[in-house]
Amino acid sequence: MRMAELSRESGVPVATIKFYLREGLLPPGERTSPNQARYSQAHVRRLRLIRAMLDVGGLSLAQVTRVLAAVDSDELGQHDIFGVAQETVTQPGLDPDDDSESANAARERVRKLIADHGWLVPLDSPVVGALAKVVATIAELEPVLLEQIDDRADLIGRIADLDVSLLDGKSLEQQVEIVVAGTVLGDALMSAMRRVAQIDRSARRFGYSGDKASKHR
Amino acid sequence: MRMAELSRESGVPVATIKFYLREGLLPPGERTSPNQARYSQAHVRRLRLIRAMLDVGGLSLAQVTRVLAAVDSDELGQHDIFGVAQETVTQPGLDPDDDSESANAARERVRKLIADHGWLVPLDSPVVGALAKVVATIAELEPVLLEQIDDRADLIGRIADLDVSLLDGKSLEQQVEIVVAGTVLGDALMSAMRRVAQIDRSARRFGYSGDKASKHR
Repeated sequence: MRMAELSRESGVPVATIKFYLREGLLPPGERTSPNQARYSQAHVRRLRLIRAMLDVGGLSLAQVTRVLAAVDSDELGQHDIFGVAQETVTQPGLDPDDDSESANAARERVRKLIADHGWLVPLDSPVVGALAKVVATIAELEPVLLEQIDDRADLIGRIADLDVSLLDGKSLEQQVEIVVAGTVLGDALMSAMRRVAQIDRSARRFGYSGDKASKHR
Repeated sequence: MRMAELSRESGVPVATIKFYLREGLLPPGERTSPNQARYSQAHVRRLRLIRAMLDVGGLSLAQVTRVLAAVDSDELGQHDIFGVAQETVTQPGLDPDDDSESANAARERVRKLIADHGWLVPLDSPVVGALAKVVATIAELEPVLLEQIDDRADLIGRIADLDVSLLDGKSLEQQVEIVVAGTVLGDALMSAMRRVAQIDRSARRFGYSGDKASKHR
């Protein structure tokens, strides 16, 4: 297809597509004349992936470039792509130089959680640092939330089973799209469903009071 | 304790504490002389709660003010406090006037989910609108993520059981703190644990390659 059709099909404006081509985010089309090129469905998919990372994932152009470099690399296996995509959308973790008592206690707690659950995760992974940071914050502010961390980890593990099973039979590019969108949108879906389920559980435990609740809205 | 000690104990700078006092987020201390006041452990706890909502929860000052007003109100019952804390950290939902096909499809999907799971939740609740909005976005961008929504809802329901059981045997004040911090910090904990568990599941499914992965970090 020509540039105009690529724009129509992907919903991305021509000027933006040209920018992505210049920046190397989108591979060049097949040249058919000195100033014309032909694009394929692969270009449409790549554009969708770029838009998903920018708009839904809230990634920067530099981060998108990094993920795409990993996707286009022949060296990476599926598991590594999962890691690269994930780490790009992961919040900054505990500063490795933070040697405070609370930082070390959080690291130890996370190390034990990973060991107890037999999770195959390198302890120096950014996602582990990010978890340690959340645990350190909770330990300081509301340690009671950590009391059931093992039960929570079991349930979250079963959610991760669902997440990873989504990748079955998908192309590498689709997988990256699912990982990036699934990480960001999946968080939003979990949080939104948890609020609704909490209202139900709270109503059953403390009594349903629809009128009072709406009065304070 | 004096202001300087309150600052040391809470880790919040004196200028910031003074700002919170002026804004009414922090109740005034007990005045001991025309320009000195004494503060208590309740002030330390309140400062930590404010920092948690701002820093971890990413709430605005206006949202923090709203939650604290609910916390300090005598009118609210337990179930209502749950609702106020939750609604404040809930993202804006679908515009009720949005009558597009995709908006109606998302509403119907959420209505069916709530009915199928027997959840006691008013359909006009803000948390239901927020869930419908997330569902609408996912349906447009990555509909595959909705395929397992019922399995996910079951697991999230069990997480909500844990959330609500945390309130057992706690004073009303503690319960409020747990609900507020638990909503915000609980989201962060779920998301961070999910990333770690995904790495494990991905390693088991696609093969562990720690060296390769770290090379590309």
